Amino acid sequence: MYKTEFTEFICEFQAEIVAMIADMDPTAEYRRDEWERERNGYGISCCFQNGENFEKAGINVSVVNGIISEALLRQMQSEKREFKVNVGSAFRACGISLVVHPVNPHAPTTHFNYRYFEVDNVWWFGGGFDLSPAYVYKDDAEFFHNALKEACGEAYYLKFSEWCDQYFWIPHRDEHRGIGGIFFDDLNVDVEFIKKIASTYIPVFRELMSRRIKQPYTDLNREWQQIRRGRYVEFNLICDRGTKFGLVSKVGRIESILVSLPRTARWEYCHKVIGEEETRSMTIFKRPRGTSYTLAQ
Amino acid sequence: MYKTEFTEFICEFQAEIVAMIADMDPTAEYRRDEWERERNGYGISCCFQNGENFEKAGINVSVVNGIISEALLRQMQSEKREFKVNVGSAFRACGISLVVHPVNPHAPTTHFNYRYFEVDNVWWFGGGFDLSPAYVYKDDAEFFHNALKEACGEAYYLKFSEWCDQYFWIPHRDEHRGIGGIFFDDLNVDVEFIKKIASTYIPVFRELMSRRIKQPYTDLNREWQQIRRGRYVEFNLICDRGTKFGLVSKVGRIESILVSLPRTARWEYCHKVIGEEETRSMTIFKRPRGTSYTLAQ
Repeated sequence: MYKTEFTEFICEFQAEIVAMIADMDPTAEYRRDEWERERNGYGISCCFQNGENFEKAGINVSVVNGIISEALLRQMQSEKREFKVNVGSAFRACGISLVVHPVNPHAPTTHFNYRYFEVDNVWWFGGGFDLSPAYVYKDDAEFFHNALKEACGEAYYLKFSEWCDQYFWIPHRDEHRGIGGIFFDDLNVDVEFIKKIASTYIPVFRELMSRRIKQPYTDLNREWQQIRRGRYVEFNLICDRGTKFGLVSKVGRIESILVSLPRTARWEYCHKVIGEEETRSMTIFKRPRGTSYTLAQ
Repeated sequence: MYKTEFTEFICEFQAEIVAMIADMDPTAEYRRDEWERERNGYGISCCFQNGENFEKAGINVSVVNGIISEALLRQMQSEKREFKVNVGSAFRACGISLVVHPVNPHAPTTHFNYRYFEVDNVWWFGGGFDLSPAYVYKDDAEFFHNALKEACGEAYYLKFSEWCDQYFWIPHRDEHRGIGGIFFDDLNVDVEFIKKIASTYIPVFRELMSRRIKQPYTDLNREWQQIRRGRYVEFNLICDRGTKFGLVSKVGRIESILVSLPRTARWEYCHKVIGEEETRSMTIFKRPRGTSYTLAQ
């Protein structure tokens, strides 16, 4: 249905984001890799590392196809409960995903993913855009959620933000990875709607970074960021279905799948949240599931 | 069968190791936590952090019981293929586990775990002891494997070292976490045999640390260690059944389960192994699965 059109969109969108980040941090080392899996598709992975402003920024496009294996079906069923496809069916998928980990502990990690999936005669879109700050700023949270509300429309926003809040939950920690955003799956909509939502990334990112990327910070701020980066790693490796899909489907490329991990992270045994700002942010990470939209208020 | 006796042993063994590490690094911050889960058991977690010699050292004992849930059975079945226990059966387990991450990149991370499990009328021991160095030293590898061979006897050593090599394999990286050791499960043996194997830790650890803990190192050495620590995190969060058991069974304590993670780790996109020593070690991590015992030769 939308495979060709969406593939074109994500490739152009990737190039636009790469240009923006290169412009915002000329000091970062840049690397672009095109990869191909014989008969199973291809991808373009772009990564900035070790910059003055960005510790790591990965922007991936992939266009893959394959056969639904038992392991993959099991993985997909947990994602899509009423999934009625059989083992042996052919699937085609394309998507774009991004993670940007800024150096400054006051600047949030941004993540999005938009994907299109076809199997037998069924097709759908999935994806979302969420924010993981170490320090939660009320103004930034409102700005972010309101931008999403405007792009999605109120009804979709309410549904998607609740879904996002359910998704980016770390059960073994009883806390959220960040402050939510939007998340959806199994969505049969016109491709223009997805393009519109996806495109909010650029102005939202520019605004959030302009507010925080040069803010002074202390060693304590940096330490707290590293602890939160540890939680990011835990979520991605233990909970994230996208990562698991990549590892199980075996049509991806390991360096591209794991580019989402921060450059550095830290785990302390029984880490104590001591500062006032850290405690305030932690209270927000511990908020009830499915209440992300309250951050827009 | 052996629950009381083994519980006593692991508590004494834990105290002995804690005393040894305190002696080897008086600068490390030490913390001891006793925890209890109403009706589901208790544990003692001991942790050293941020020392001159040890970045992080966790030594846990736990004595738990519970009912086999569906999720837990699924987890155990993947561990024990012919597991014939039903959902709803009561289980009792006790065990000790340890991870020590030294500061010096030339000193290996050591890990062991020994556990006793009873369900219905079946009981068994499981466990193992393995080494994850960033830099593989031939002499150390031989010393380590030979000590295990002597403790287990040749037949068990061959079986357990092959098993270990299968277990500590990171499939998405096509590499081993380290240089193997021993691993076993479903073992019906006299408790004295397990005590004997477990007890090798103290002399082996003392010897390995005395060889490496004061060796001079460079920034490059430290960077390579951080990359290997990243692999350690990947294995523990994606592959390790012990960690998954802890997260699924819900009778554990999250800080104790995740104390195995290193204090710091690093992920670089498409990291290139450039030095001669790093390349040599990487070749060993990429050796075929199930050939760990060759490191003893």
